[in-house]
Amino acid sequence: MNEIGLSRRLVAEALGTGMLIATVIGSGIMADDLAGGNVAIALLGNTVATGAILVVIILVFGPLSGAHFNPAVTFVFLLRGEISRKDALLYVIVQVAGGLVGMLIAHAMFELPLFQLGTIERSGGAQWLAEAVATFGLVAAILGTLRWRPEAVPFAVGLYITAGYWFTASTSFANPAVTIARSFTDTFSGIAPVHMPAFIVAQFVGAALAAALFGWLLPARVEN
Amino acid sequence: MNEIGLSRRLVAEALGTGMLIATVIGSGIMADDLAGGNVAIALLGNTVATGAILVVIILVFGPLSGAHFNPAVTFVFLLRGEISRKDALLYVIVQVAGGLVGMLIAHAMFELPLFQLGTIERSGGAQWLAEAVATFGLVAAILGTLRWRPEAVPFAVGLYITAGYWFTASTSFANPAVTIARSFTDTFSGIAPVHMPAFIVAQFVGAALAAALFGWLLPARVEN
Amino acid sequence: MNEIGLSRRLVAEALGTGMLIATVIGSGIMADDLAGGNVAIALLGNTVATGAILVVIILVFGPLSGAHFNPAVTFVFLLRGEISRKDALLYVIVQVAGGLVGMLIAHAMFELPLFQLGTIERSGGAQWLAEAVATFGLVAAILGTLRWRPEAVPFAVGLYITAGYWFTASTSFANPAVTIARSFTDTFSGIAPVHMPAFIVAQFVGAALAAALFGWLLPARVEN
Amino acid sequence: MNEIGLSRRLVAEALGTGMLIATVIGSGIMADDLAGGNVAIALLGNTVATGAILVVIILVFGPLSGAHFNPAVTFVFLLRGEISRKDALLYVIVQVAGGLVGMLIAHAMFELPLFQLGTIERSGGAQWLAEAVATFGLVAAILGTLRWRPEAVPFAVGLYITAGYWFTASTSFANPAVTIARSFTDTFSGIAPVHMPAFIVAQFVGAALAAALFGWLLPARVEN
Repeated sequence: MNEIGLSRRLVAEALGTGMLIATVIGSGIMADDLAGGNVAIALLGNTVATGAILVVIILVFGPLSGAHFNPAVTFVFLLRGEISRKDALLYVIVQVAGGLVGMLIAHAMFELPLFQLGTIERSGGAQWLAEAVATFGLVAAILGTLRWRPEAVPFAVGLYITAGYWFTASTSFANPAVTIARSFTDTFSGIAPVHMPAFIVAQFVGAALAAALFGWLLPARVEN
Repeated sequence: MNEIGLSRRLVAEALGTGMLIATVIGSGIMADDLAGGNVAIALLGNTVATGAILVVIILVFGPLSGAHFNPAVTFVFLLRGEISRKDALLYVIVQVAGGLVGMLIAHAMFELPLFQLGTIERSGGAQWLAEAVATFGLVAAILGTLRWRPEAVPFAVGLYITAGYWFTASTSFANPAVTIARSFTDTFSGIAPVHMPAFIVAQFVGAALAAALFGWLLPARVEN
Repeated sequence: MNEIGLSRRLVAEALGTGMLIATVIGSGIMADDLAGGNVAIALLGNTVATGAILVVIILVFGPLSGAHFNPAVTFVFLLRGEISRKDALLYVIVQVAGGLVGMLIAHAMFELPLFQLGTIERSGGAQWLAEAVATFGLVAAILGTLRWRPEAVPFAVGLYITAGYWFTASTSFANPAVTIARSFTDTFSGIAPVHMPAFIVAQFVGAALAAALFGWLLPARVEN
Repeated sequence: MNEIGLSRRLVAEALGTGMLIATVIGSGIMADDLAGGNVAIALLGNTVATGAILVVIILVFGPLSGAHFNPAVTFVFLLRGEISRKDALLYVIVQVAGGLVGMLIAHAMFELPLFQLGTIERSGGAQWLAEAVATFGLVAAILGTLRWRPEAVPFAVGLYITAGYWFTASTSFANPAVTIARSFTDTFSGIAPVHMPAFIVAQFVGAALAAALFGWLLPARVEN
């Protein structure tokens, strides 16, 4: 990975996170507009688009930057000593910035006000548990697949979030950069800004637990 | 496989089965809540999530424990002499335990009472035939794909259950640990406890038939 | 392929075609029952199940019998000299027989009369064009993928039929054995028996055109 | 690629683009007919079919012609010096011609007038931004995946358009040949001819931006 210069890696993280968030927010707007009030149908459209774009952006940007697109994932690789503190900090900054640009592009494409604040209430212990579970599972999917079948990581992550949109009560934000961007949209996928910090805390807790458990569970790689 | 210690294998079986059941039950609750009474739409959400998580957990845990997550599958490998009696028994115990924990987590995420009993009537010869067919097909998918294309097993199983949710009249429980856990939820994916034992019997019958037929059908592996 | 005995190959063709038709008919019944009259939702359930099972049965049975499950496909391999006349005839017989058993099992699982006759009118030049197009495309998908990426054939076929259910006006029967079996069900996926023969003619025409065109289009395989 | 004669390559481009457009238009007609007025359900059917057929036609025709099926993609390869001007011109001609034939076949299969003009208004800055974004992302998906994992390109493109149907406000035409063909259908996927040229301009702008950015972002391939 060191063969790719830092500037390319940061552009990859920013662009990938931007595409992810443009898809999460944009497909939420489209699905909600068309679904005639049936929220399950809207969530199906949102799910299909999000799962699909995750596979694509990890295929495209994975060999450049590792395709984190997610401060909680970058945090896990920092805990594992696989990224330097400085690079991790830069990754998180460009993830958040790229995500905000993706949010603006989604709003522009749908002729909505560029700057909005989320209003959907997503709070309470059950929601926080859901976010911790969601991020735990996401990190499990990444570390486990990366250990045995690295070429399958794009599919594992896309499919994991596909499931997460339905099996967690919070629809699996599972990503602080995504959570921040979604607090700036008053559409289907939004979240009230006041509820954003607790989501992010729960996400880091879930990520840290998965990093610890899988640090033990996965045997060290033996070169063969 | 022997290189992975038993404790890691058991944790893998418990955690994978827990993630499977949290997804089956959790996505059932979410889909049913949102679908506005259209059961086909609810089943679509439930299907997409379950098929997707199966691919993920087999990718992650397959190289650790074999990714059975299912006493009927463990039984087939016992019949084939590919797991010891002691390990098979331990696998089944942690599958059931992990599944029950997954059920509790699903209930907690959706703010439902943790302890419930299923009430959906699923009984009679047609339902039992459906479960035998469902489990026969699942074991066929596993043994056939494992024989020729082991790296495709995660996809074969995820896609098989995706089909099974629709083509079998029982929606393909096809797994005694899943059946037990689903007898403790009074939600979309539940089953009345009184109907649970017959489902499990039908599942083992289907599994045994598939093990016998594919024992003959698949030629012994020739190393090349 | 010659290393697999004929009896195993015929069992594979019968069992695979049976699983295919149990899925086509069974998921049609389930989807229609649950969709509350919205035919697009019913077709979505039918599509997801059929596309998924095709991937599975081609993964499982492909290395045994070639996974034709379809007299039009067997006919193409006969035209190409890749199967003997005798074996082709036996393949077609067990495909039709296996399909009929799959139809009976679907009816039994859903507690419907075992023996039925289809009543849905599917006739006229537009429908026959659709069946010819559908089967042309199916054979194109098989021959093209088999030539370049044989390991991807299960996915190509599953995805092709997924598309075909929607882009052809006939929902892509594309298979004489499937057409025969579907003429014996008075459910969502049925066809009136009187319209069955013309469908089969159109399917063979489409298959033959694709065999001719792709015989020219695909350069001979060069061993490398 | 030079080993495949030009005539075969042109037939592959024409046939593949024809199958793509028959699917886009045909599945739009089917989905709209069946969805009972719920546009999100109609778009789901349209999405599933389009994403699936893209995987299939790139698997089948990719090794023959490169599987462009899209003048904007051919333009990118011309910019990169990977196709001659003459071949690029011929590619575009057969893509447009093949697409128009696909449109006629879709109309014929559904017993609609063969020659129609689109009436759906798709215009304005937000729509043009959406088309530029859509085509930018498509070219990113192609160039990035082609660089690292060429065997995954069929899946990357199919999944990208699956997402694009939902996350871009224009439903991601992202293809001038497709846009021309869709201006000749007065069905679900149509576009008024007067709005077609601006869509095509936006598509070439998005493609050129992606070609420039990824020309810098992706390091030259090192043979290993």
